[in-house]
Parts: sequence; structure tokens; C-alpha cells
Amino acid sequence: MVYITRKEHFSSAHRLFRQEYSDKENLSVFGKCSNPLWHGHNYILRVAVKGEPDPETGFVMDLKTLSQLIEEKILQKLDHKNINLEVDFMKGKLASTENLAIGIWEELETGVRSAGAILHSVQLEETENNIVEYFGTY
Amino acid sequence: MVYITRKEHFSSAHRLFRQEYSDKENLSVFGKCSNPLWHGHNYILRVAVKGEPDPETGFVMDLKTLSQLIEEKILQKLDHKNINLEVDFMKGKLASTENLAIGIWEELETGVRSAGAILHSVQLEETENNIVEYFGTY
Amino acid sequence: MVYITRKEHFSSAHRLFRQEYSDKENLSVFGKCSNPLWHGHNYILRVAVKGEPDPETGFVMDLKTLSQLIEEKILQKLDHKNINLEVDFMKGKLASTENLAIGIWEELETGVRSAGAILHSVQLEETENNIVEYFGTY
Amino acid sequence: MVYITRKEHFSSAHRLFRQEYSDKENLSVFGKCSNPLWHGHNYILRVAVKGEPDPETGFVMDLKTLSQLIEEKILQKLDHKNINLEVDFMKGKLASTENLAIGIWEELETGVRSAGAILHSVQLEETENNIVEYFGTY
Amino acid sequence: MVYITRKEHFSSAHRLFRQEYSDKENLSVFGKCSNPLWHGHNYILRVAVKGEPDPETGFVMDLKTLSQLIEEKILQKLDHKNINLEVDFMKGKLASTENLAIGIWEELETGVRSAGAILHSVQLEETENNIVEYFGTY
Amino acid sequence: MVYITRKEHFSSAHRLFRQEYSDKENLSVFGKCSNPLWHGHNYILRVAVKGEPDPETGFVMDLKTLSQLIEEKILQKLDHKNINLEVDFMKGKLASTENLAIGIWEELETGVRSAGAILHSVQLEETENNIVEYFGTY
Repeated sequence: MVYITRKEHFSSAHRLFRQEYSDKENLSVFGKCSNPLWHGHNYILRVAVKGEPDPETGFVMDLKTLSQLIEEKILQKLDHKNINLEVDFMKGKLASTENLAIGIWEELETGVRSAGAILHSVQLEETENNIVEYFGTY
Repeated sequence: MVYITRKEHFSSAHRLFRQEYSDKENLSVFGKCSNPLWHGHNYILRVAVKGEPDPETGFVMDLKTLSQLIEEKILQKLDHKNINLEVDFMKGKLASTENLAIGIWEELETGVRSAGAILHSVQLEETENNIVEYFGTY
Repeated sequence: MVYITRKEHFSSAHRLFRQEYSDKENLSVFGKCSNPLWHGHNYILRVAVKGEPDPETGFVMDLKTLSQLIEEKILQKLDHKNINLEVDFMKGKLASTENLAIGIWEELETGVRSAGAILHSVQLEETENNIVEYFGTY
Repeated sequence: MVYITRKEHFSSAHRLFRQEYSDKENLSVFGKCSNPLWHGHNYILRVAVKGEPDPETGFVMDLKTLSQLIEEKILQKLDHKNINLEVDFMKGKLASTENLAIGIWEELETGVRSAGAILHSVQLEETENNIVEYFGTY
Repeated sequence: MVYITRKEHFSSAHRLFRQEYSDKENLSVFGKCSNPLWHGHNYILRVAVKGEPDPETGFVMDLKTLSQLIEEKILQKLDHKNINLEVDFMKGKLASTENLAIGIWEELETGVRSAGAILHSVQLEETENNIVEYFGTY
Repeated sequence: MVYITRKEHFSSAHRLFRQEYSDKENLSVFGKCSNPLWHGHNYILRVAVKGEPDPETGFVMDLKTLSQLIEEKILQKLDHKNINLEVDFMKGKLASTENLAIGIWEELETGVRSAGAILHSVQLEETENNIVEYFGTY
């Protein structure tokens, strides 16, 4: 079993808040991340998959295939977008980095399996100091 | 003459557009950066000042003073804010990284001079691939 | 189960040595790290905790809470200090990165549990080439 | 159990191809990595070992010993070399990052065990976006 | 005058040597970089241009235009190529990082001027420890 | 004229203080950097030299020569040492990063000139947020 990781980037706007809270309550729970006029980040995404290297190619999974899958399923939906308003798989969810990592996992899992590998982890850096990682519901 | 640089971070939302353009014209000129629902970045700010080291302290300028000046004049206005809608010194300007660097320079210059040093450059990384630097109108 | 990591920094002096050894023996075992007049590092600390995201906030643990806990329990004791002489939880221990990581784990575990999450790992970079990670006595 | 990681670098040339394929077939399977005139990378290697800290030294394994082992067994064979043509432990194998990580693991395992620790993982960054990690056949 | 920098990457093979030298002489002058079977690097390229921000767009030069120019003139010629054997603008030159930076400058200067900006510098990182910068023959 | 930069590292202990001040005065002027029991840093040193590439070698200056010069003149004196107590060229000076950069410049200038190049700048990162650069008394 070998693990390979592909690193990608996207830049998005978001806001942490609950609609049933007042702005003041949101500020008290979510701090400056609740700003009603939005803020944003350069997210760094690392997707790790695992499997046996193919004896013919030496690859666990062709990194071009993995990169294209992330481009289609994730970057086109998230890059230069508003996570709260424009991302189908985040509709109705709090736009926390935790929920975003889980959402990305669910978007990618089938495609990685179709390519003959196993999705191992989705890691998301919101800032260089705040990192979230999700390994699925194993 | 010695140069000292302080590195700081802020995360903001912005949009590149001109109000007199249609959404279509904005898209053609500014690309995905014109998204009407905003996007955002983790900006890295490097402020360089120069001067003679003080014989008493060995400092060109106390880095705590420089850091507090950047905190008050820049980070409190920009961090977790919308650059187009909430930043006084960007009112009526296109929110390009170039204009933002010039605006930050103008906000900092007097304070650096009061502290006995000379502002040398303001460098702003919008993403790790896109960097702007401004040296004033020397 | 989702994992979140907070990255922090501190700068400290230390020395690797055993009091019962001569300076020559210390030099032979610990090399230049045994310098009796000290040396120091910028340590990078990554604290990972795990848990279920709270349905109300989308957070495994509020990163502000985690950051404050690290500030109080670790950074105030270690930053700009001498690890051998000034850090209560390192008294009587060799100031190796391994022992420091274990000590930080023990300082943080109760506080993380009180905040409703589980401490997963303490990772310490002494230099960019030397990294230690501790996962507790699971 | 504590984990320590040593980071090292080497710069090598390589090519992904199968001799029984035509240049066209190699291009279709391996893309630009199949260039018959070679290309190369700055590889970043992270070797993680685990064990109990020695009560006498506080070390899981002396990092100087680990660094020398990597120097002798890996860097002298790979640095400024052609992976396909000059590296004994890669003879007859596809020069993929996956196979290289497995080969490095096999070169290091005995030496780490002789030094009283357990080899945990070999991580290889081919570029900052493409990373492979191998944990042995546990 | 504002400066903008675009960062790009390419991975190439090369060799430092003079044809009129023996392998032994090449080894003595160029060290392990003279390996006749090649080695390679992940080069990091930073291209800085300067000019006045356009009042209409706020841009010194559209970074998409700069990025496309670098892609066409530089990356397509260098990425996954052999610098000694395959790069037209390096024919007959020693493949040192210095000469490569000068060559890249000459390839880019006209295109940057056509786009209304001034080429300021070409910086090339061969490894994270070895960096070359060229500012033209001003 | 081409510029080449060599990056090196050292880890040292130091303290900012004036002997004629009380501990309280030192604390008020130098903050936590005045800790009488020392603290330390991983310093990153970048030395830039300039010159015409040699037509025979393509080099401004052989980077091995530059690296050895830095090793002998700087790293052997500073690495794993106490800057206040053990470094000859810092005797009697405040151990500020500004003074350290000037001291390193003076140690290197003759050697770089003997090797046929011109010392351009000495840049010193004390932490990733605090950087000093010195260009000599041109």
C-alpha cells in the first residue's frame, strides 16, 4: 500500500453564521469570521489516496487523473466563488472548514474509487495556522 | 542604512469590477476575479523600513512599534473585511492588489516617519504566485 | 471524526547535557547541542485534536479556545525562555525535542478534553530538518 | 512511542517509460514525464522513525546517526544522478516516485533497526504538488 | 511605479560541462553538476515587471497576460526538457543558472514591452539554497 | 551584472540588553528579548553577491566557494553558539539582528572580493516575521 497526495489551491469568500442568530449572537459565537459582508481565504487542499502501485505504470493512480478529478469536482465549484451562496454541496450547511473538508471528501470518493484507488484523507488549510483533516467514516 | 521587514497576514473578501461595466464586460476584463458574489484571499503583507541603527538599542525601528502601527492602521481595517465595501482608504478605488499596496503605503508613511525611520516598500502577496510591491513616488 | 490542527511558534534557548557527565562526555554524546553557553531555536508547534463537528457551530473545537489554551499552558512558559532553567514541566528532564513534545502533550491533554475534543498529536519542529511527533500512550 | 522525522534533499534526473513501448505509447501513458532526453527534480525526502526515547539521552534515535545513514544509503546514490541509469536499487524498475519511495524504505530499514528504532514512513515530494508516502508492508 | 511578480515552476534536466574539457576536468571545475548522465531540478521562476497601474483596470499588466507569455516563451520550452539539448535559446551556452536567467530575460523582454510594462527582473531558484537574479543591462 | 544568493542556517542563543541598564530598564526597552537566561532562534542567512558570469564557467562566483566562505567565517562562529558571549565579531556590540547583519557583512566582504565578485547584501531572518537586510555603506 502506497499513499500519494495531490496539492491544489482555491480562493473563496465565506462567512460563519446561523440565520436564526442575530448579528450580535453570530459575532459572539463566530467572532470576526461572522462578518456579514464576507471575508475570504486562499485554501490549500491536499487529497491523499492509497493503493498498490500498478506493475505496468508504477502508479497508485495517475496524478493527472487525480488532478483533473479535483479540478472538475472541487476547484470549478469553489475557486473564486462564495462558499455560502454558490457551492452546491455546501447548501444548507455551515461554511466551517470542517464541513467543507467533509463535503470535499463526499464529492471525490466515488471518482477515486472508479480510478482504482482508495480515498485516504482530505486536508484543508484555511490559513497556515488552521488546518482540518478528514479521513471518512471508517 | 539598514533595512528591516515585518511580515503580517490578513484575510479579506474583494471583487474586481467597474460599476459602469455590465457583468459581462467585467467578466471579460477581470475574469473570475469579477465574481459579483465576491471571493477572497489570505494576503501576506511585508513592510520594509530603513534607517541607521540607534546606537543605544541597535534597532532601526522597534519592531513592536512597527507591528502595532500595521495592526492599527492596516490589519484592523482589512482583516476579515470586505475590501470594496468596508475599507476607508480604498473607497472609490478598484480593489486591485496594486491599488491596495499603494493605499497601505499611504496609511503607513507618516507613522513610520514619526518613529524615526523611512518607509522603503510595501509588498503584498495576493496568492503565492501573484505579488505586488510599491516603493512610493521617489 | 474530524482532525483540526493549530500551528504556533516559540523561540527558546536550551542545551542538551547530563550533569553527571563531563563537558567532554556531553560533547561526545550530544555534539554541538551540548554547548554550555546555550543555543536556541524557533520551534514550530502543531497541536492536532479530533472529534465530531458540533452541529450548531460546525466546529470540532473552537480554534480560538485551542489557541488560548496553547498560549496559556505552553507559549507563556516557553517563548523567549530557557527550556532547561525556566520551564516548570521540563524540570529535571533532558531538554530533547522528544521530551519537550511529551511535556507539551501532558500540559494540554486535560484542557482539550474539557473543551470536548480529544488530543491527537503534538508535533514539534526544532529546525526545518528535525521534527518530533507524539501521539500519547494510546 | 515517539516519532522523529529527518528531512533531506536530492536532485536527480529521471524518465518514466517502458522499454517495450514505443515513444508514442510512452507519451500517451506517461505524458511529458516520458521525455527520452530526461528531465529532473529537487526531491524532498522525509524519513520518520519511531521508538521510546532513551532515558540516558532523551533521543528515540540520534538524528546525526539517522542523517548519516540517509547520506550513505540514499543521497550518495541519488543526488546529482540519473535514477534510471545509475541507482543500484532502482535497476529494472520504473522510476516512478512510488517505486522510489519503496526502494528507499528497503535501503533504510535494516540500518534504522540496527540503531534501535523502527522505520515508520518514507515520504517523497517530487514537486510541491506531488507527494508519495510509504509505510512498509505492515 | 508599481512592481508585480509572477511565480512559475518548471522541472528540467541539465549538466554543467565544457565539451573541450575531459570528464575529469569537468568534474574538477563543475563538481557533481557535471555528471555526464544528467541530473535535474524543480526551478522556481519569478518574473517582475513594473509600470503605472492602468486607471481603468488598476493593473500594471494583466497577470493572465504575463502568465501566458511565460507559458509560451519559457515553460513550453523548458518544462520536462533537457536544458542542454532541447532549449533553442540555450544552444551553445553553458547551462548555468546565471546563463539561464539571462536567456529567460531575453525571451521575455519584447513581450512585456508590447503589453505596456517594463521587465524588471528574472529570478531563478535552482534549489532553495541557490538563487540567481538578473535585472538586464541597464 | 548577475546576482547570486546562497541561503544558509544557524541556530544561536542571544539576549538584547545594555549592561548599564537594570533588568527592569532592559525589560522596558527590549521586552522579552532581554530575558537574562537567554532565548534563541533559527536564523536564516541569505548572502547575495554580484558580478559578470565567467565566460569559461558561466558562474558569477562558484557557489561552493561562497558556501565554504560562509561556513568558515560565519557558521562555525555562530551555529550552536551564544551570540553575546562567544562570537568574536560581536564582542562589545548589542546582539540585535541589525548589528549581526552588519557584522556578517564585514566578515564576508574581503573573501567575496578575493573570489572576484562583489558582496551585494546580507539578509537575516530572525523569525519568519522579522527580517533585516544590509547593503553596506555604498
